[in-house]
Amino acid sequence: MSATRVQLLSPRTLPLLSSGRVALFLQGGGGPHRGGVGPRFRSLTSPPLSCSSSSPGRALSSLSTTRRGLPKEKMSENGMMSRAKVLTIDTMNPTVKKVEYAVRGPIVQRAVELERELSEGMKKPFAEVIKANIGDAHAMGQQPITFFRQVLALCSYPELLSDSTFPEDAKSRACRILNSCGGNSMGAYSASQGIESVRQDVARYIERRDGGVPCDPDNIYLTTGASDGIVTMLKLLVCGEGAMRAGVMISIPQYPLYSAALAELSAVQINYYLNEEKCWSLDISELQRALDEARLYCNPRALCIINPGNPTGQVQSRECIEDVIRFAAKERLFLMADEVYQDNVYAEGCQFHSFKKVLFEMGPEYSETVELASFHSTSKCYMGECGFRGGYMEIINMDDDVKAQLTKLLSVRLCPPVPGQALMDLVVNPPQPGEPSYEHFIKERTTTLSALAEKAKLTEQVLNTVEGIRCNPVQGAMYSFPCITIPERAIQEAKELGQQPDMFYCMKMLEETGICLVPGSGFGQKEGTYHFRMTILPPTDKLKILLNNVKAFHQSFTQQYS
Amino acid sequence: MSATRVQLLSPRTLPLLSSGRVALFLQGGGGPHRGGVGPRFRSLTSPPLSCSSSSPGRALSSLSTTRRGLPKEKMSENGMMSRAKVLTIDTMNPTVKKVEYAVRGPIVQRAVELERELSEGMKKPFAEVIKANIGDAHAMGQQPITFFRQVLALCSYPELLSDSTFPEDAKSRACRILNSCGGNSMGAYSASQGIESVRQDVARYIERRDGGVPCDPDNIYLTTGASDGIVTMLKLLVCGEGAMRAGVMISIPQYPLYSAALAELSAVQINYYLNEEKCWSLDISELQRALDEARLYCNPRALCIINPGNPTGQVQSRECIEDVIRFAAKERLFLMADEVYQDNVYAEGCQFHSFKKVLFEMGPEYSETVELASFHSTSKCYMGECGFRGGYMEIINMDDDVKAQLTKLLSVRLCPPVPGQALMDLVVNPPQPGEPSYEHFIKERTTTLSALAEKAKLTEQVLNTVEGIRCNPVQGAMYSFPCITIPERAIQEAKELGQQPDMFYCMKMLEETGICLVPGSGFGQKEGTYHFRMTILPPTDKLKILLNNVKAFHQSFTQQYS
Repeated sequence: MSATRVQLLSPRTLPLLSSGRVALFLQGGGGPHRGGVGPRFRSLTSPPLSCSSSSPGRALSSLSTTRRGLPKEKMSENGMMSRAKVLTIDTMNPTVKKVEYAVRGPIVQRAVELERELSEGMKKPFAEVIKANIGDAHAMGQQPITFFRQVLALCSYPELLSDSTFPEDAKSRACRILNSCGGNSMGAYSASQGIESVRQDVARYIERRDGGVPCDPDNIYLTTGASDGIVTMLKLLVCGEGAMRAGVMISIPQYPLYSAALAELSAVQINYYLNEEKCWSLDISELQRALDEARLYCNPRALCIINPGNPTGQVQSRECIEDVIRFAAKERLFLMADEVYQDNVYAEGCQFHSFKKVLFEMGPEYSETVELASFHSTSKCYMGECGFRGGYMEIINMDDDVKAQLTKLLSVRLCPPVPGQALMDLVVNPPQPGEPSYEHFIKERTTTLSALAEKAKLTEQVLNTVEGIRCNPVQGAMYSFPCITIPERAIQEAKELGQQPDMFYCMKMLEETGICLVPGSGFGQKEGTYHFRMTILPPTDKLKILLNNVKAFHQSFTQQYS
Repeated sequence: MSATRVQLLSPRTLPLLSSGRVALFLQGGGGPHRGGVGPRFRSLTSPPLSCSSSSPGRALSSLSTTRRGLPKEKMSENGMMSRAKVLTIDTMNPTVKKVEYAVRGPIVQRAVELERELSEGMKKPFAEVIKANIGDAHAMGQQPITFFRQVLALCSYPELLSDSTFPEDAKSRACRILNSCGGNSMGAYSASQGIESVRQDVARYIERRDGGVPCDPDNIYLTTGASDGIVTMLKLLVCGEGAMRAGVMISIPQYPLYSAALAELSAVQINYYLNEEKCWSLDISELQRALDEARLYCNPRALCIINPGNPTGQVQSRECIEDVIRFAAKERLFLMADEVYQDNVYAEGCQFHSFKKVLFEMGPEYSETVELASFHSTSKCYMGECGFRGGYMEIINMDDDVKAQLTKLLSVRLCPPVPGQALMDLVVNPPQPGEPSYEHFIKERTTTLSALAEKAKLTEQVLNTVEGIRCNPVQGAMYSFPCITIPERAIQEAKELGQQPDMFYCMKMLEETGICLVPGSGFGQKEGTYHFRMTILPPTDKLKILLNNVKAFHQSFTQQYS
């Protein structure tokens, strides 16, 4: 690929308008755009618009996509027949258009853009773009756990099993995994539910975690990251039309996977608001309000909880979880517990309680009836192995017929990625006391978790020194979600641009400081309040600079618009 | 996990009835079942049905799931309140229930069952189960390509970069991949569209493959296996309701991913029949017939082709591909070319022609208008790395607005598994002449492909010696799909059991010989004809035995029912 053939600007890097449609710049370039990406929309190798017959790589008919209501066929400028496209924004699946996912939305696309501009030598008021938008630990410099990667290398290339530099416990884990793979290879498909020995290890992990509450490996499904499990469960739950359309309760603020999946499934999103004044706690009265209102126009089926919270960083108390379980039982809701941050608890007095454990401690009235799916992942906690897309879900009290349907549905996609399954196995079955890798493993894990705890504290402290920023304690997970005061004039200017005020704020911050955050509107927030989500993942030194830059930006922004 | 806690028989291993519901055995065990799995339905650790309060791990309310129309709450036998489940077969998403996937259907569940029984020492008329149902090369003993696995090990554990036993070309590939990863780690999320350098390598590969037809990396999307790309494209194309519901043309026989995805999306499956008499060739007149009929009740949007064919093993001629492209242009259909077997071409005179190449050689009238998505994978060809779930799709002439929607949709799932992306990179950028690993790579690749060619021939030859079996040449891919004559009495017996005759045949073969095949009814076939799909993947020696066992079974089956 010669340098000139690389498209510098692609449709993917164009900002989405609020309607979900992409700005189009070909017809005179008069459309709304931000960050100056418009004029360079076409590929560097694109032929002039009037010349087409000699350019096999370009579609003349791309012209036609900028207007609506075209005839089926039309004459192009050089007299050639040009067909209207089969698949256009008007003829595509309308539910896909409704999907939004702010964590990788327009602001991130602009960040990628800015990185490219910097690498081309363009002058900016900052030396690098810092992506604090996503919980991507390794990208922020966190090191992988040595033991995990040793086992993965052994599984990838089993010839290394005879290499004496690898510790014996890594070798025995690798052998156990390989022995469970068809042909002793990670290249074989696994069972659709996941490798049986991995599911057994997951079950034992859950039993240890939950103080002996039994776990059946047959209730464990390995998944392609937690997202895959969550979407699959929502897919099973969705049914009905009109007033009987399925509704799913999600917290606001929420992780936008939920809203995106519900939009795609044409299910009703039932919002319940977390209480920012009480450190993003969950009030049962608010659940009740949201549910009662929703029953007027849909059929509420499930209640989703993220604990520790994303984007809000709270850790639910045991009492709160009990209340939620009682509520779900009383109101006949399927419980979905997103527990991917279960090791990320920092605040004193806070502790992770799994929904499973609490459910079983509440006695058979609940443990034998309440339907629960709980999700975990290799992507967060101390390992942060997002790229491997490993995860599992445990299902409790699921109807056997439905379970068979679930397994059938998963079989269509054959199996979750086997390296991700292997990694999940290591997470639930790490080195044990007495094994050669134990001490180094504990050291690495402790270092990472301690650093995260320190950064959680630091983030809260620095942000709360800024007038106009109010940040709850980051009790757990990987994010702060502070409330920001945006001056009325800035709100007006944003509205004139058709932007959410916090999107306007974050976009300005990105352009001026290189810091990439996600506006609170991407997660949902009480009307009239504004927030951003920022990860605590950058290395401490960098995080300090970042927080000071956020502070300086907020002050100058406030001054500018006051 | 103590041995007694492992559930020997789970709902997942129960045969599905034709209605898609699982057989239930709790209420007296009188339901239909096969292979004697019924009586052992409950877990070994399950409490007796009348005892529940002391068994926290089991759901009393599972009792209630075996009947329909339960009240919201009911008294159980011991007087405790038992809630009816929220999620039941009656209240779940109805589109999921319509999904079927024969490649991992009831016959495979029974095969897993039989393996377990064998391992427990149960006596069977065979010593092992041979799973010839799925294209899972490594599980059948095919060895991974050394170079690929070396690079994956280096990427997993970069400390190995200083190990002198690894060849330099493997190290340079690993460095290139790691340099494209956030934090130089496969544990970081990639861009949702896939790692940019990998997409560049894919584009160069396509250009080489297609004799210089240009390929833009921005048109490449890395995927979680080809299945993921196919489902995503179908998802974009689906729209409309009633008579305007989207229709998608698929070949019969087909790979059941297509029918499963269409069922889940509530789209109309438009069947066009391949011509078995002409070696499963595709007649345009048949496409026209299928389309004209379908236009009466739906809105045909796309045409799917699998070339080389799955399950039918044919390789399309260049002329045929041209005709298909002309047909798609004329009828305004989005073309989907499933080309995952592009290296699996064995028959003399046959050659793989990509739809992309043919499209571009047909001139701008087609190359600038016909919308095409083409799919490839790491799972097939000479590498057979199914477990890594690597793949890509190339999209041609896609509307820019739709492309932005596609990228947005993919971002919800964050990214395809990075090890699969790395593997895809190696497949499209293998060792080159002059590099240290080149010769060994070529030797491994040639050995695998030659063996497959030999086994393709062998399969056809042996099957055609059997009276009542007629097998087309296996020109490509990995399967034979012979036509079998089933005696009228066997057809009657199958019907009495509510089974498809070829399911009855394959289930009998499994029970008597341990050979696991997929009945033709799982792929679709002309009414009144019967087939099975069998992979050619077992090692040659084993394949010979397998073919002879198939022959012997067919003869005795025919004799028994004549």
